Amino acid sequence: MVKINDNYNRLEGSYLFSTIAKKVGAYTKEHPDKRIIRLGIGDVTRPLPAAVIKALHLAVDEMADESTFKGYAPDKGYDFLRHAICENDFRQRGCDIDEDEIFVSDGAKPDSGNIQEIFSSDSSVAVCDPVYPVYVDSNVMAGRKISYLPCTAENGFKPQIPDREYDMIYICSPNNPTGCALTEYELQQWVDYAAGCGAVIIFDAAYEAYISEDGVPHSIYECRGARECAVELRSFSKNAGFTGLRLGYAVVPKELVRGGISLNSLWARRHATKYNGAPYIVQRAGEAVYSAEGKQQVRQLVDYYMENASYILSGLTKAGFEAFGGVNSPYVWMATPDGMSSWEFFDMLLERAGVVGTPGVGFGACGEGYFRLTSFGNSENTKEAVDRIVSLMA
Amino acid sequence: MVKINDNYNRLEGSYLFSTIAKKVGAYTKEHPDKRIIRLGIGDVTRPLPAAVIKALHLAVDEMADESTFKGYAPDKGYDFLRHAICENDFRQRGCDIDEDEIFVSDGAKPDSGNIQEIFSSDSSVAVCDPVYPVYVDSNVMAGRKISYLPCTAENGFKPQIPDREYDMIYICSPNNPTGCALTEYELQQWVDYAAGCGAVIIFDAAYEAYISEDGVPHSIYECRGARECAVELRSFSKNAGFTGLRLGYAVVPKELVRGGISLNSLWARRHATKYNGAPYIVQRAGEAVYSAEGKQQVRQLVDYYMENASYILSGLTKAGFEAFGGVNSPYVWMATPDGMSSWEFFDMLLERAGVVGTPGVGFGACGEGYFRLTSFGNSENTKEAVDRIVSLMA
Repeated sequence: MVKINDNYNRLEGSYLFSTIAKKVGAYTKEHPDKRIIRLGIGDVTRPLPAAVIKALHLAVDEMADESTFKGYAPDKGYDFLRHAICENDFRQRGCDIDEDEIFVSDGAKPDSGNIQEIFSSDSSVAVCDPVYPVYVDSNVMAGRKISYLPCTAENGFKPQIPDREYDMIYICSPNNPTGCALTEYELQQWVDYAAGCGAVIIFDAAYEAYISEDGVPHSIYECRGARECAVELRSFSKNAGFTGLRLGYAVVPKELVRGGISLNSLWARRHATKYNGAPYIVQRAGEAVYSAEGKQQVRQLVDYYMENASYILSGLTKAGFEAFGGVNSPYVWMATPDGMSSWEFFDMLLERAGVVGTPGVGFGACGEGYFRLTSFGNSENTKEAVDRIVSLMA
Repeated sequence: MVKINDNYNRLEGSYLFSTIAKKVGAYTKEHPDKRIIRLGIGDVTRPLPAAVIKALHLAVDEMADESTFKGYAPDKGYDFLRHAICENDFRQRGCDIDEDEIFVSDGAKPDSGNIQEIFSSDSSVAVCDPVYPVYVDSNVMAGRKISYLPCTAENGFKPQIPDREYDMIYICSPNNPTGCALTEYELQQWVDYAAGCGAVIIFDAAYEAYISEDGVPHSIYECRGARECAVELRSFSKNAGFTGLRLGYAVVPKELVRGGISLNSLWARRHATKYNGAPYIVQRAGEAVYSAEGKQQVRQLVDYYMENASYILSGLTKAGFEAFGGVNSPYVWMATPDGMSSWEFFDMLLERAGVVGTPGVGFGACGEGYFRLTSFGNSENTKEAVDRIVSLMA
C-alpha cells in the first residue's frame, strides 16, 4: 500500500484567500446593490503593453508555418531572451551575469517553490514573518523545519541578521506583503552573513521594477560576494503584466558551489528533468519587454500602479493612519486603527466601506494588526476606495 | 554550510541526446556536403492547426484590452478547457471523469516528474525497461529506489505483472520508446494488481491519439476499478503539436484515497503551491483542439505522422529487419541487424546513410540491440531516410 508524503499533513490550511472570497460572497449576496472595490489580490489589471501584443501575434504566425514553427525550447530558454535579460537587467546595472547563469521559467512562484529541491532535506530554513506563503509551504512539503525572522514596526519591517547559522534564507525585497525594501547596506550585510556561514540566499526580486529610491538594490548581485552565495528570482508579472502569460527566470551563478558541487549544474539538471520550457511565443513576448518601445510601455504601466500606491499611502497617512511601503513597492502595509485585529478591520472595511483588502495576519503572526492594500487596481476605483476608507474614519 | 540534495549524485549522466548531438556535429563538420535526416528526437515538425492559430490570435487580442484582460488563471485551469477535456477525452468514451478531477498543466513531462512528490519518499517504484528517463530521474532525486520491469521481444515489449508488491508503477501506453500498446485485457490486469496491493499506477497516455486498433484503451479509466488506483497524464504535444506551446493535464480521481487522504486534494495543494497555471492564451488554444474544425485538423496531423510510421515499419520489415510499434504509436522500435549494439548501429547509420535515430540502450539496459525511429519528420525526408537505410542493407 503506497503511503502519502506525510509532510503534507504538517501544512497549515491555506484559507486566507478562500475565507476572503467567502466573506465577500456572503456580503454581496446580502447587499446586491453595493459596489465592492477590491484592493486585496496581487494580480494586475491593466492590459499587456502594445509591444508585447505585437510580438505575440508575430510569434503565433511563426507557429503556423512549417519553416518557422518551433517545437521544444532549449532547456534554459532561447538565447535571444537570455541575452536580452543579461544585457538589460544586469550588465546595464554593472552586474556581471552570463547567459549560462539564466534559467527561463514560467514564473517566480514556481521557481521559488522548486528551488529548495536542490538542497538537502535537513537544511535549516529562515524566512521573514510576515512572508509569501510559497517559501514556507514548499519547504514544509520537503520535510524541513522553518524559522521565522520577525519584521515589525520596531525594525522597520526588515529582517535582522540572526545570531545563529541558517542554511537557506529567503529574502523578498521590495517585500510582499510589507512593501518595504532593503537598502544596499542592509542587503550587503545579509550577503556577508551568508558568505560567512556558507548559507544560500534565495533572493526574490519580483517587485524590482517598483524601486523608486536610490540606494535600494535592484539585484542582489549589486552586492559584493553575492555570486558566491545567492540565487535570484525574477518575474515578468508585475512589471509587464504577465500574471496570465507566465514568464520568469532564476539566476544561478557559476561561483555558487557547495560541497564541491555547482548549484548551476544541479538546477540545470532539475530544469531539464522536470520542466520543459516556457512557450516560444511567451519567450518572444518577454524579449519585447526589453525593446525600446516595450521599456517605455512597461515604465508607463509601473508608473500607473505607483500613482495608485502614492494615492493610497498619502491618503491614509493624511487621515491619521500609520502606513508603510508604497514607495519602492506596489503594496501598502497599514496598521489597523484602535488595536483592531487584522480580521476585525477586514470585516469593518467590507461592511462599512465596501472595500476588500488582505488581513496581515494571513501572512504570518507578525502581520497581526496590519492590513495589505495593493495598487494593482484601476485608478478611479483605487481613489474611491481610499476616499471611502478615509471618510469612514473621519 | 548548506548541503546539496545528494540524491542528485545518484543520477546517471544524461548523455544520450548530448552524445548524439556531438556525434552528429562531428560528422557534419567532416562532411559538410552530406544532408543528414533526423528521425531521432520526439519533437513534432508540422505547424500548429489553423483552429489553434486562430484561437491564439483571438486570445492575444483579449489580453490587449482592459475589459477582457486575464491575469492569474484558476488553480486547476479554466472551466472552459476542463469542461472540453471531460466531455471529449472521457465522457464520449464512457469514462466518468469530473471537471474537479482535471488539473491543467504545462505538459505531461512536468506532471510525470512532479507527481511523485505527493507520495512518501520510501515508496517502492517500478518502471519499464526501456523507459522514459523522467520517471526514473525524478524518483532518484527524491531518494527512491527504482525497480525495472523488463520489456523485451519475449514478452512483446509489455511489462509483466510482478510477483511482489510495488507502491508506485509507471506505465506509458502507447509506449515511448517501444511503440507498443497494452490491450484492454492487459491494462485491466495491471489495474487489478494495483487494486489488490494498494499501489498507484501513474498512467502516461501522451500518445493516445495514435491508437489505431480496437481493444487498445485510450484511457486507463476504461478499466474497471481504475478510479481507485490510477492517475492519468495527458498531453497536447503529440496530437495537436503543442511541444513548443506547452499544455497537458493530470487526472486524479476523487476515489483515489490512501491512508484516509485524498490524492486529489494533495495534488491540488501541490499545484496551488508550486505552479501558477498555464497561460490563458494557451488554454484557449487547447480549447480549440476540441472544436469541430480543430478535431479534424488534429486528425490530419496524426494521420500525416502515422503515414510516416507506416512507411518506416513496412519499409524496414520488407527489407528484412525486425521492427515493432508504429501501429498505435509514432515510434518504431527496430532490432539492430547482425547483433550490432545500439551505438554501433547508430554510428553505421550516421556514417553510411546520413540518418540519425536514437540508440535503444539510451532508454535502459533492455533497449540494447534496439533502435528508435520517430515519425515526426516531414514525409519526404522520412521516406528518403527509410530508402537510404533499406538500400544500405541491400
